[in-house]
Amino acid sequence: MLFHVRMEVRIPHDMDAEVKADIVAREKAFAQEVQRSGRWPHLWRVVGEYANISIFDVESNDALHELLSGLPLFPYMDIAVTPLAKHPSDVNA
Amino acid sequence: MLFHVRMEVRIPHDMDAEVKADIVAREKAFAQEVQRSGRWPHLWRVVGEYANISIFDVESNDALHELLSGLPLFPYMDIAVTPLAKHPSDVNA
Amino acid sequence: MLFHVRMEVRIPHDMDAEVKADIVAREKAFAQEVQRSGRWPHLWRVVGEYANISIFDVESNDALHELLSGLPLFPYMDIAVTPLAKHPSDVNA
Amino acid sequence: MLFHVRMEVRIPHDMDAEVKADIVAREKAFAQEVQRSGRWPHLWRVVGEYANISIFDVESNDALHELLSGLPLFPYMDIAVTPLAKHPSDVNA
Amino acid sequence: MLFHVRMEVRIPHDMDAEVKADIVAREKAFAQEVQRSGRWPHLWRVVGEYANISIFDVESNDALHELLSGLPLFPYMDIAVTPLAKHPSDVNA
Amino acid sequence: MLFHVRMEVRIPHDMDAEVKADIVAREKAFAQEVQRSGRWPHLWRVVGEYANISIFDVESNDALHELLSGLPLFPYMDIAVTPLAKHPSDVNA
Amino acid sequence: MLFHVRMEVRIPHDMDAEVKADIVAREKAFAQEVQRSGRWPHLWRVVGEYANISIFDVESNDALHELLSGLPLFPYMDIAVTPLAKHPSDVNA
Amino acid sequence: MLFHVRMEVRIPHDMDAEVKADIVAREKAFAQEVQRSGRWPHLWRVVGEYANISIFDVESNDALHELLSGLPLFPYMDIAVTPLAKHPSDVNA
Amino acid sequence: MLFHVRMEVRIPHDMDAEVKADIVAREKAFAQEVQRSGRWPHLWRVVGEYANISIFDVESNDALHELLSGLPLFPYMDIAVTPLAKHPSDVNA
Amino acid sequence: MLFHVRMEVRIPHDMDAEVKADIVAREKAFAQEVQRSGRWPHLWRVVGEYANISIFDVESNDALHELLSGLPLFPYMDIAVTPLAKHPSDVNA
Repeated sequence: MLFHVRMEVRIPHDMDAEVKADIVAREKAFAQEVQRSGRWPHLWRVVGEYANISIFDVESNDALHELLSGLPLFPYMDIAVTPLAKHPSDVNA
Repeated sequence: MLFHVRMEVRIPHDMDAEVKADIVAREKAFAQEVQRSGRWPHLWRVVGEYANISIFDVESNDALHELLSGLPLFPYMDIAVTPLAKHPSDVNA
Repeated sequence: MLFHVRMEVRIPHDMDAEVKADIVAREKAFAQEVQRSGRWPHLWRVVGEYANISIFDVESNDALHELLSGLPLFPYMDIAVTPLAKHPSDVNA
Repeated sequence: MLFHVRMEVRIPHDMDAEVKADIVAREKAFAQEVQRSGRWPHLWRVVGEYANISIFDVESNDALHELLSGLPLFPYMDIAVTPLAKHPSDVNA
Repeated sequence: MLFHVRMEVRIPHDMDAEVKADIVAREKAFAQEVQRSGRWPHLWRVVGEYANISIFDVESNDALHELLSGLPLFPYMDIAVTPLAKHPSDVNA
Repeated sequence: MLFHVRMEVRIPHDMDAEVKADIVAREKAFAQEVQRSGRWPHLWRVVGEYANISIFDVESNDALHELLSGLPLFPYMDIAVTPLAKHPSDVNA
Repeated sequence: MLFHVRMEVRIPHDMDAEVKADIVAREKAFAQEVQRSGRWPHLWRVVGEYANISIFDVESNDALHELLSGLPLFPYMDIAVTPLAKHPSDVNA
Repeated sequence: MLFHVRMEVRIPHDMDAEVKADIVAREKAFAQEVQRSGRWPHLWRVVGEYANISIFDVESNDALHELLSGLPLFPYMDIAVTPLAKHPSDVNA
Repeated sequence: MLFHVRMEVRIPHDMDAEVKADIVAREKAFAQEVQRSGRWPHLWRVVGEYANISIFDVESNDALHELLSGLPLFPYMDIAVTPLAKHPSDVNA
Repeated sequence: MLFHVRMEVRIPHDMDAEVKADIVAREKAFAQEVQRSGRWPHLWRVVGEYANISIFDVESNDALHELLSGLPLFPYMDIAVTPLAKHPSDVNA
């Protein structure tokens, strides 16, 4: 089941540089692990912003929330979730 | 080069039913032709709306505008375009 | 799987009265049938508006879109869908 | 009398960790006590957000405000209240 | 129980003049009847707009919706309802 | 002359507790003094928010600004002022 | 007493040309009469829009609403009113 | 003196096709004449929209409004004007 | 050439009181000097807000930006500029 | 390939003055270097704001993001990117 997710990162400017580096490193490792599991099939950078647009493929709403709230950057992001359905004109559907 | 495009269809309620059916049919044929060309790799329905979220893969801004403005439903859609870049955590990039 | 859905009805003022009465009657019948199936557990009127807030319990995003787009009033509604998850403080979860 | 309430938690990033843990624990205890009293029949997590959507069943506007303003997290939340009425198509009404 | 209600009138420009005059006359009669019943204690015009700000005193959310949806202008108004509570600094409370 | 005023309190989370208590106490005393003078005939709490909706009855715009900017909480509030006029359907006007 | 008023004209595209010309001519005559009375001391065009920004000098909120609602274009305008007060740095005040 | 102007075209769907073609043709001729005069140095299409972003170089606000309001499509456009100044980092300034 | 400018002051709550008093005093002196030069013909307080609405009369966009960015409060204000033109119904134009 | 970019600078008020001066100086040097390379053909100041409107001419979305995210002020700016296409009425296209 597919979900469109937009994440906008808003790290406070006064966060300690080492703490920040650690969070960002753990975010990357976690994101890559989820991608390899097949549950995060697309991850794009929004041009000009510290933000991404992603597609998630998960079994349920609960699974998606568990995954997103587990992201190390979760407390510092504005996240918007849009459920997706099959489009009748999709040639691959 | 990837672009994120959100299209919201707003066909006037008083449009002639046959005219509408013809436009919608031509839209579908055109959309499927572009998908098969590889320039429209993803097309999803937004749940609960007469809207889609799409990813386009085109060579330039001009090519994208030519493609979008050629859609039979173009005069009846609100379209928002977001340029995408490679994400540093993308395992496939 | 639960979804929060807000529907705002915007029937054109110049719609034929009989056509409107027919659509509204079919909407009510359809809504009650879905409620009885257990997939629409809550349906409330928003005070002062021709709008409702609903909770749907469906197996997938596709099922929800199929259901919503099948509503007779679908072409005349603004619909916003919010996926819900289990809350950690919910005593019934 | 039913009210739809959306609460969005915005705890300042520089809040002391122990203070925060204490507030969150008291919030949970209080929320569960109110749920058990029957005045907070539904509590859902909004997917991807530190937010909830709730239904309250109280005797008056004053009772609702007293309850909400008594939440330990009240000073750190954006709250939006929408009064609900019986829907004419509700099969349970 | 008090509610703050803002009503903005949006009568279609092509409404028949007699139909409009009839609706507006019935609206006025109904509004005055409800005021005299004590359930609509305040009614003010918003300067520069075809809109009003009102205070209603009703026994429940359902009673308020029944009242508002019974206004002859209801199909032509945008209405926003805000529940009010007693203020701790109110000298009359 | 009547004005509708919405005040939303936004006290910084790091304000000293004693300073805050003092400001809030002076706000209450000032608000009650103005109410007793007849210039602040209505003061309601917005349910679920640290906000109020008020009606002021003053002789001029200058008098209203002098009054509002004299509130001890003025530096910590978002205030929106709407001028009101007599409504043609008001039975008391 | 001064008020800042922004008026945005939205004449329906299908209005009869003669009717429109008549309304616009009466609007101009009325506006000039009010200006000459001293109650409309400033009237500016917003560059690029069919809109104006005006300053009114009237004795009360009621007088302002009576004036604005008497404008021949009133049913076709979006109007926003902002009360003004003397500024402490105004050298002419 | 430079101005940034965004124009969004909203031609009513029921406009007669010949009338529309005539307006669009006159718009193009007028736009090209102004460009050749040097007062409209840049004109770009916004990708995916029936809209443009333009830079105008005119002697005054009045001159800009006269020019914009003279565009044949003026009654059918939403126009937003932003005054521009020399940037201190501009290597050509 | 006239410009409409709205300035909203947002001084950080933790600014040192002496620093703030100094900035505000210099702002007032500067504002009065510009007013006396004839380039700031109108300055009004927005009722209920730490904000002003002003009219500037300057020779160019560059002159306006130089003036506004020279205000001592410039780093602490949200400023919105609207170019004005002569109105065809203005009896003084 | 052209892109319209609006950058709004939001440097925290408590940033160390030397750090700020250093960032701003490096921003200027970098901006001028990119301008000289031909990839940043236009850079304008928005009147009354610490903001600019720019046109970039780059080979791809990735190139634009690399450039923008390399700006020393990038962590302190709100950036909005709009892809541009050739306009059919552009006499220079």
